[in-house]
Amino acid sequence: MFSTDDARHMARALELARRGQLTTRPNPRVGCVLVRDGEVVGEGFHIRAGGPHAEVHALRAAGDKARGATAYVTLEPCSHYGRTPPCSQALIDAGVARVVAAMVDPNPQVAGRGLAMLEAAGIETQHGLMANEAEAVNPGFMKRMRTGRPFVRVKLAASLDGRTALANGQSKWITGPEARADVQRLRAISDAVITGADSVLADNPSMNVRHAELGHWQSRISEADLQQPLRVVVDGKARLAPPLKLLDSDGPLMLASLRGYDCHWPASVSVWPAADNGEGKVALTALLDELGRQQINEVLVEAGSALAGAFISAGLWDELWLYQAPKLMGSEARGLLALPGVDTMAEVPSLTIQDVRRVGADLRLILTRQEKP
Amino acid sequence: MFSTDDARHMARALELARRGQLTTRPNPRVGCVLVRDGEVVGEGFHIRAGGPHAEVHALRAAGDKARGATAYVTLEPCSHYGRTPPCSQALIDAGVARVVAAMVDPNPQVAGRGLAMLEAAGIETQHGLMANEAEAVNPGFMKRMRTGRPFVRVKLAASLDGRTALANGQSKWITGPEARADVQRLRAISDAVITGADSVLADNPSMNVRHAELGHWQSRISEADLQQPLRVVVDGKARLAPPLKLLDSDGPLMLASLRGYDCHWPASVSVWPAADNGEGKVALTALLDELGRQQINEVLVEAGSALAGAFISAGLWDELWLYQAPKLMGSEARGLLALPGVDTMAEVPSLTIQDVRRVGADLRLILTRQEKP
Repeated sequence: MFSTDDARHMARALELARRGQLTTRPNPRVGCVLVRDGEVVGEGFHIRAGGPHAEVHALRAAGDKARGATAYVTLEPCSHYGRTPPCSQALIDAGVARVVAAMVDPNPQVAGRGLAMLEAAGIETQHGLMANEAEAVNPGFMKRMRTGRPFVRVKLAASLDGRTALANGQSKWITGPEARADVQRLRAISDAVITGADSVLADNPSMNVRHAELGHWQSRISEADLQQPLRVVVDGKARLAPPLKLLDSDGPLMLASLRGYDCHWPASVSVWPAADNGEGKVALTALLDELGRQQINEVLVEAGSALAGAFISAGLWDELWLYQAPKLMGSEARGLLALPGVDTMAEVPSLTIQDVRRVGADLRLILTRQEKP
Repeated sequence: MFSTDDARHMARALELARRGQLTTRPNPRVGCVLVRDGEVVGEGFHIRAGGPHAEVHALRAAGDKARGATAYVTLEPCSHYGRTPPCSQALIDAGVARVVAAMVDPNPQVAGRGLAMLEAAGIETQHGLMANEAEAVNPGFMKRMRTGRPFVRVKLAASLDGRTALANGQSKWITGPEARADVQRLRAISDAVITGADSVLADNPSMNVRHAELGHWQSRISEADLQQPLRVVVDGKARLAPPLKLLDSDGPLMLASLRGYDCHWPASVSVWPAADNGEGKVALTALLDELGRQQINEVLVEAGSALAGAFISAGLWDELWLYQAPKLMGSEARGLLALPGVDTMAEVPSLTIQDVRRVGADLRLILTRQEKP
């Protein structure tokens, strides 16, 4: 059905799509390649919400050469008027002969209508080429469109024996500078970062992305173009109060609390009235639903053992990013995760190691939940 | 000084040496390749203590063709009458023209005398080709010759959050069958396996090598040829008593105790009067000295958090083999290692990750102590 040339052009379109990784939110990252008579006549990718979509960039680059060309797009062209006119119409108007989409857009506003528009105009359409790869470029957008909730990454950093701090609370630093720069990059691709009041009270963090600490990604984006994630603090008991470094640093801030605050917060801070989970704690499902409503695609949980453990034990996570320092801290040191006790090993769920790599002197594991066979 | 042909032949000799990995104890693993006019005329490796050395096997294979040949040996040929006559003399008698040794034998009975014998007979000698690789084939023999103590590997198996058992003690199984087979192979290359009385009382293990569980190594050695490691139980308080699976299964058994036993042990069990470390526990340095005297080259510590922690905190280890299961067990579960508490992160030593690989669904890390820069 698809030729190796098709695959080559789609791989290029995916490469282009990834260039939007830091800037398209809340939109998906999309790339487009226009090919006529075996020659690439136009390329483009979506850069920023409100700006032209990938197809429009590619059509502009191709000009008249778009007529009769094949368009390779990493996501079905849109069929609706959003902040820009529908791309399917633009492809029709340009006289494109064939459209290959990596996947159908799960956005209920599109959901096959873009391809149908093209077909109705007599354009040959195909989809399903490198669909898994295309899915992986937009894990958050895809999950949000399908479930209303963002894609959740839980970041953990520990010694080899699973410790995050000495008995006296000292934890600076367990992992090395390369791993910490990797976490900055992880924050940079996240639309929101969630932490808990305990961590804020203990460490007074800023939780923002520092351009100077992005390592080899500094050249990918200027400091001015860097978008800060929404910082969310789970503060059920409304224990936080100014001053906090969270207020001094860039980026929006949302407090999820079960009760009102006595203190006064600056106008830039949103206080979200959280729901109780029935145990006096913030209901995390409702929090994720709210973040979905706020068009948050990818969430990073950077929290202590209680809150990170709550996300994990409730199954409210998609990827676990575990940074392991080659250190041994001993059983007196603080544990990584609070999880409910179980009585048999069979009840301990097995995860799947998706990726292992060295980051400086440390190790980074990416884990997913095991699919039950 | 060395040609690429020299390196190629030495690499082959090292490959041969490794074939003796399961059988040469307490001798080192040694390989030999004889090359005349660019042609390999004989190969050999040491199989078993008391049997011919690598050079003798290779000389027998080469016959008259050994005359004028170059001998590549992974360890300096011996110069002394042990259970067999000196190999240096055999090489001289065979008319070998040149001998390239990967390294000088640190055995005080040799220590350069083998090469000196060859030189005195007019044979050209060289050494230092792939010395690090040759060293790595015999970590235990080399360390014992230099320090009197064996090379110590500490094996640990844990979840990603550093837990070895549920709060109720259940631990079967944290790692999967592939990792457990890997541990069987680790036992098979070990001259001794050390565990603690706590583990024996809790699990009643046999601690021997089971041929059927060697996985892809089953074809490397027959069940009859398999040598069982000396099993050592650190039982300071003399708490063990028959019956034990340790008594029903193959392999010698040594009990290291600070006091006498009331019970009667079979004649095959040796009770070693351990020294007190000053804190009422078995002095591990003296234990390793004793194992060195018993010609134990490589020791595997398979113990619980207290004894494994004692080896690690005392610095009495060379390699840490950590099997990590992609599981999270929570902070209520049992910790991996008892280590003395420290007050600052700077006091937590950093290890070096030498190797990371997947073993089935699990991960295996090999770590060494960081060399201070």
